[in-house]
Amino acid sequence: MKKFLNSVDTVLIESLDGFAAAHADILILGEKHKFIRRRELKPGKVALISGGGSGHEPLHGGLVGHGMLDAACPGQVFTSPTPDQMLAAVDAVDTGAGCLFIVKNYEGDVMNFDMAAEMADGVLQVVTNDDVAVENSSYTTGRRGVAGTLVVEKIVGAGAEQGMALPDLKVLGDRVNAATRSMGVALTSGTVPAAGKPTFEIGDGEMEFGVGIHGEPGRRRDALKSADAIAEEVCAAIAGDLGDRAKGPALLFVNGFGGTPSMELYLMYNSARRMFEKQGVTVIRSLVGSYVTSLDMAGCSITLSMLDDQMTALWDAPVHTAALRWGM
Amino acid sequence: MKKFLNSVDTVLIESLDGFAAAHADILILGEKHKFIRRRELKPGKVALISGGGSGHEPLHGGLVGHGMLDAACPGQVFTSPTPDQMLAAVDAVDTGAGCLFIVKNYEGDVMNFDMAAEMADGVLQVVTNDDVAVENSSYTTGRRGVAGTLVVEKIVGAGAEQGMALPDLKVLGDRVNAATRSMGVALTSGTVPAAGKPTFEIGDGEMEFGVGIHGEPGRRRDALKSADAIAEEVCAAIAGDLGDRAKGPALLFVNGFGGTPSMELYLMYNSARRMFEKQGVTVIRSLVGSYVTSLDMAGCSITLSMLDDQMTALWDAPVHTAALRWGM
Repeated sequence: MKKFLNSVDTVLIESLDGFAAAHADILILGEKHKFIRRRELKPGKVALISGGGSGHEPLHGGLVGHGMLDAACPGQVFTSPTPDQMLAAVDAVDTGAGCLFIVKNYEGDVMNFDMAAEMADGVLQVVTNDDVAVENSSYTTGRRGVAGTLVVEKIVGAGAEQGMALPDLKVLGDRVNAATRSMGVALTSGTVPAAGKPTFEIGDGEMEFGVGIHGEPGRRRDALKSADAIAEEVCAAIAGDLGDRAKGPALLFVNGFGGTPSMELYLMYNSARRMFEKQGVTVIRSLVGSYVTSLDMAGCSITLSMLDDQMTALWDAPVHTAALRWGM
Repeated sequence: MKKFLNSVDTVLIESLDGFAAAHADILILGEKHKFIRRRELKPGKVALISGGGSGHEPLHGGLVGHGMLDAACPGQVFTSPTPDQMLAAVDAVDTGAGCLFIVKNYEGDVMNFDMAAEMADGVLQVVTNDDVAVENSSYTTGRRGVAGTLVVEKIVGAGAEQGMALPDLKVLGDRVNAATRSMGVALTSGTVPAAGKPTFEIGDGEMEFGVGIHGEPGRRRDALKSADAIAEEVCAAIAGDLGDRAKGPALLFVNGFGGTPSMELYLMYNSARRMFEKQGVTVIRSLVGSYVTSLDMAGCSITLSMLDDQMTALWDAPVHTAALRWGM
């Protein structure tokens, strides 16, 4: 295992300490590293709380701040946070307008966020499940929630900032999730620090087509193909799943998994954009970068969110987080 | 070689096409991919032009836009751009107030930017050489210019935006470079697409201490050490080189080389910050992310820039590029 670390037991807290120190203008750490919260709360605003296993940074802590999340609860690497973390976060950031939990669809996360939602008052939830690769998976009943979660957090975050009420934000979040599809490809496996070796074996000339963000199996193991061939198949899977909706204005988000540099991500973006535009999609917004990672896995995912005027305006609204910032 | 690409001959232009399409609001590509230029020029402003071999993205193209560069000239991977690229860029973005070239200290870059500067009128140059690892190197006489180049581009870019004159910007750029030191560590080698195999061999338990951003040798090959031990030695080298200047307010920039995820970069930031603060440095600004990469190399560099009030204000000034954006 080749990583920058001092001890596998302290990777997470040392990384969180560094993160909080580097972004002290935006956020503060909760007691015992239970959550990361926005430094300045906005009384009367619905609080958005997300979280999940660590190893996907900057998701979710890097998305805490004005116009996105009020708090993020980091679990151990690839392990759900516990309900006491979510309850502590609710306690810290709910200013009276209620909370919306944004939860990626994994059994552990869903169970723990559900438990916290039952114990807290005035909580609604949006569960994301944008990954079209497979139904059911290692840790999932139904589809996995992956990079599309960032799109939900951005758009719902802007709605909350603008004063939308909790039930309306729940409807909006479900609508964004329903308009969003993703699929990923891995060239290498990430390595969980505590495991000390790659999560899965993969040959020099192979790729995992439809991989999950914890290295879960995808649709198949295949020979490594050209960028255009990969983009063609991923985009066809996404467009096929969207069906008649895959026409008109959209956000195209090409996401790196942690070990792939931006030169390759922009090349994939170029391929994917051509594929989608041939099918009648008009890319009006773009995001390219490593935002929803899988430790040091080489690979990328492609996400398409079909946009309407409200979603576009909320995507464009000001945001000030460690990982996404514009308009302020 | 595991990369997303269609052909090694078209990696660069396909990536640039994707980059320009994704950021069409900020920039446009010059003819024959000779340069990336800011979409909206500001008449009367000194034009800042940088460039260098590709493979270090987002440097420099990702730093084109309001408050930073007016143009960036991308060479082939790890190969200097040619003088005709710089001349075409000058022609496109010089609105009459002159041009400043910002050049990393590599022989090919220095020679080609010099040649272009002689052929164009009204050009001054700042050459960056912030890497304290080694004097002279594979492609360098003197010290290498590495991640500190971003700091020069940000601060000088803000000065240009505020209307500073060309000679003053040259002085400012040299001053920022002189206040800035960097050093890097590699855990793996990157792979140049046209070479098809890693630039250097490195064992499972080894690191290259003081590596350059093209995989050039550093101070020594060593056993992989803990994050704290690495940070301690890198920070001591930087502080030792700064001497008496290594006291007071500073920018700490932890830069990923392309294959290292942000969880590890923040952990290194945490270690480096503690080391510097023990020595009397006060970290008042921070940047953590993969901005000056070496293809898919795993590793990171640490940069410290000693700040005065003018430099701090210019660092904080609004910027709107693909890779750095704040205040607007």
